[in-house]
This record gives sequence, structure tokens and C-alpha cells, in this order.
Amino acid sequence: MRRSERIAVITRILTDNPHQLFPLKYFTEKLNSAKSSISEDLTIIKEVFQNQKLGLIETLAGAAGGVRYIPLYSRDEIENFLKDLCTRLSDPERVLPGNFLYMTDLIFTPEVVNKIGGIFATCFADKKPDYIITMETKGIPIALMTARAFNVPLVTIRRSSRVTEGSVVSINYVTGSSKKIETMSLPRKALPVNSKVIIIDDFMKAGGTARGMMELMQEFKAEVLGLGVLVTTAKPEKKLVEDYISLLVLEDVNNDTNSVVIRPGDWIYKSTEADS
Amino acid sequence: MRRSERIAVITRILTDNPHQLFPLKYFTEKLNSAKSSISEDLTIIKEVFQNQKLGLIETLAGAAGGVRYIPLYSRDEIENFLKDLCTRLSDPERVLPGNFLYMTDLIFTPEVVNKIGGIFATCFADKKPDYIITMETKGIPIALMTARAFNVPLVTIRRSSRVTEGSVVSINYVTGSSKKIETMSLPRKALPVNSKVIIIDDFMKAGGTARGMMELMQEFKAEVLGLGVLVTTAKPEKKLVEDYISLLVLEDVNNDTNSVVIRPGDWIYKSTEADS
Repeated sequence: MRRSERIAVITRILTDNPHQLFPLKYFTEKLNSAKSSISEDLTIIKEVFQNQKLGLIETLAGAAGGVRYIPLYSRDEIENFLKDLCTRLSDPERVLPGNFLYMTDLIFTPEVVNKIGGIFATCFADKKPDYIITMETKGIPIALMTARAFNVPLVTIRRSSRVTEGSVVSINYVTGSSKKIETMSLPRKALPVNSKVIIIDDFMKAGGTARGMMELMQEFKAEVLGLGVLVTTAKPEKKLVEDYISLLVLEDVNNDTNSVVIRPGDWIYKSTEADS
Repeated sequence: MRRSERIAVITRILTDNPHQLFPLKYFTEKLNSAKSSISEDLTIIKEVFQNQKLGLIETLAGAAGGVRYIPLYSRDEIENFLKDLCTRLSDPERVLPGNFLYMTDLIFTPEVVNKIGGIFATCFADKKPDYIITMETKGIPIALMTARAFNVPLVTIRRSSRVTEGSVVSINYVTGSSKKIETMSLPRKALPVNSKVIIIDDFMKAGGTARGMMELMQEFKAEVLGLGVLVTTAKPEKKLVEDYISLLVLEDVNNDTNSVVIRPGDWIYKSTEADS
């Protein structure tokens, strides 16, 4: 097989399986090629991915070694994507009664959520989570794509306690904005104790739900490595949780004037992670 | 830029964006290369993908033309994957009280659902859906990955009618197995009338929920091109819906004997689609 053919196959397999470690042997056998040829192929892919900012090809030496693809977005790409998302979300047609912003269509659009997942994976690139955690329903697509970028399972907290999956841990929490008491539940078997997790959600106002998820994680003795939210409202400024990354900040949504003011979060201008 | 480098970049971009049409100009500009070189690169990728059964690279001629990647799995790959999934699901630890089968962990594991989505896209490769439809919560990951393979949005039906997204169509339906009356809802703005859709769900017993989804689609004058389910129970043999594809058939799950009998669906041995 020619080099250019081998490179097409290797690129396809690595990028379709983010964070999955392939021993070099996998490719030498699949492509019936010498180890030295595969190593040279990998060097070419690695360098061009780096130049074109298409993500990181990481080679690990040794018996347990191999090669894997780590999705990493450049700051420019993240900024352009988020600005474009703000433009799409600023459409006056998206203003709903009660000053809500309609964004369900976008957070269920694969090419959008695929990118959001890759951005969260870039934000948290220095973390090594065992699981991504979210809460049904709207958090699932972006959390699944984040889980895909990290190649770890997603664990979904349910709003109901009618879960038929063995013993269940339920907690009550107070929604920060409407002050209602709600329940969230997670089966014991869904998450091993002492796991390292990243929590991903679509929307945060006062942060009551996020704090509830943090408390539920304590019940599982989980270590929360990070909290990422797609959209956070500017007010209230003080949230019930600290240390979160919000990709977008919703300054205002007004049903009377039919207007939306939304912008990328400040972290993008501080982050050095995304430059790597 | 050398051919091998261009091929790494083109492969990465095409396969990360299934079903998305890229004009040749996109690559000539991005890679600063002649159209003839890019065309030759694409021919190489196309042929090696075909030989290695890694999916279809489709080139469309003309002013509105371009190139796109269509995920297609070979019958061998599908069969091996489904058999492996059956083995994992047959673990006695998965038997839950009430003769339920625990599969939540697998249907929230990205590498598993990515493959299931690609398999559904292969099953329905001759269809051109505008939307993939599912019902919260557990259907979402496999349906999202199917939507990703088709590059169309996912529309999620909710179990609650407390949806704050403008006018909502709700229907009552009777669950086929437990004969309970439930409600499912979809906001008007979530799905334009006269859309072509494929319905994807994780589990079907009698088919009451699936029939409910079909009826709800009628309210939106949608044309249902197909219905794909991950696991269908062998009994009752007669379901409330016809013409569905079930990737797996659950013959038996028994809490007393702690046993699970599950196998790939019969369609796999009839299908010619998957051979292409």
C-alpha cells in the first residue's frame, strides 16, 4: 500500500476514535506494513495536524504505548465559532414568552454540538476525567459530544426518582431562580465511587441545579474536576457555584423589545490552554 | 504541501463532517493547491476507503457540486459489533428486578453509540431524512449519533407537556405493555410541517410508544421514512407498529435464573444495503 493510502486510513481511524490508544501493531497488521513506515506516516500526520491546528496526535513509547488523537481547537477557531453561535442566538424569533431564549434546535444539531464538545474538551484538556456528568434532557447532546472527545462514558442524572435500575441516590435541591424544590436521582450502579468527573450542562441562571449536581457527586465520593456550561446568564452575578467555565454569557433577553444580547464568555481571552 | 500531508488534512475534515458537502474550492484554497491535485487526492482516498470498507467518498459534479463522506459499515463489521454487544449485554449482572435489562451504561458510551448511529445510517442509507426523531431520555445518544451520520438535526419528543417553547402539540398514548396512559409533547416550532423523518429509539416491547410517535408525526404532517430500534423484545411477536428495523432481539431476561438471551436482529441476514 502506498504512503498516501496508508495516511488516509490511519487518519480516518485515529480521528474517528478520539483519545483511544492504538498500538502501532494495530496499523502494521491492518496495513501490512513495516513499523518504520507507520512511524513515518504518523510523523507526517502529527506535523500537518499541528500546522493546520486540527488537533494533537500523541505518541506514547513503550510496551503499553501507541498513538492517539486528541481533539484540540485553536483559540481563533473557538472564538469564530462562538461569535457565529451568538449571531444565530440573537435572532429576535428566538425570544419566548417569559423572557426565555429558544436554543433547543441548536443544541440538538450534530455539527454544532460536535464542536461544543470539542471546545469543552479543549477547555479541560489538562484534566483526566473518568466520566462526564450531565442532567437530562437538554444537557445530553453537548455532554455526549464532550464525553466522545474524552472517550469516556456519559452519566445522566434523572429528574425523576422512578428509576428502575436498582438502588438509587436521590437528593432534593432548590432551583436558584424559581425557588422550587426539585428532585434529582442517580442509580448507584451508574457511577463507581471515587470517580473523577467533569459536569457539563446547557444553561445556568442562579446555579441551583449545578450545586445540586455537585452535592449528588459528593454522595458518590466523586472528585469534580470541572464544570462547563454552554450559556450562563449575566444576572445574578453571584452564582451558587464557583469555578465554572461558561462558553457564552446571556446579558439580556427581553420579550417586550424582542431583543437578545449574548456574547462569548470572558475565559476565552484568558485561556492559554486553547492556544496549545 | 506534499500529497501525503494534503490527504491527512482532507481525510480529517471529510470524516469529521459526515454528509456535509465541501466544494473542491474549499480544499484548493485551504491547502493552496491546484484543483487537479485535490481531485487526484480525493480519488486515492475514495479508493482506499472502498477497499478498506471505511465508508463512501461521494463526488458530485457541477457548479453546486463537491465532495462528501458518507459513513457506511460493512456487513461483517456490523455483525461483529452486534455480536460483541450481545455478549456484553448477556452479563447476568445486568438483570434487574422486574426482569429488566440494564443497558444504560452502554447506550451512554460514546464509542458504542457512535457505531450504533453509523449502523442505523447504513440501514437507512437509501433514505434522505430532514430530521431524526427520538423520545427522551435514553433514545437521545443513539439518535444523536444517527443524526450526526446523516448531518441533520435531532428532534426530541418530551414526556412532559410543561414545555416552555411556544405552542405545543401533545398526544396521549397507551403504553403497549403496562397499559398506562402517558403524554408525549413536541413544540410546533421544533419540526416544520411536511418534513421527512426517521424515528430512532432504544427499546421496544409492545410498540405503544413507537405508535404514539407515529401518531404525533401525523400531527406535523411528517413522512416517516423509517423506524429503527436498538433492542426489541421477541414477545409479543405482534407489535403495534410495522416495518421497523431492530438491531438486537431480546429473547428472554429472567430475574429468577439470572439469565439473558439476546441476539442480532434477522434483518442483518437479509440486508443487501450493508454490503455496498
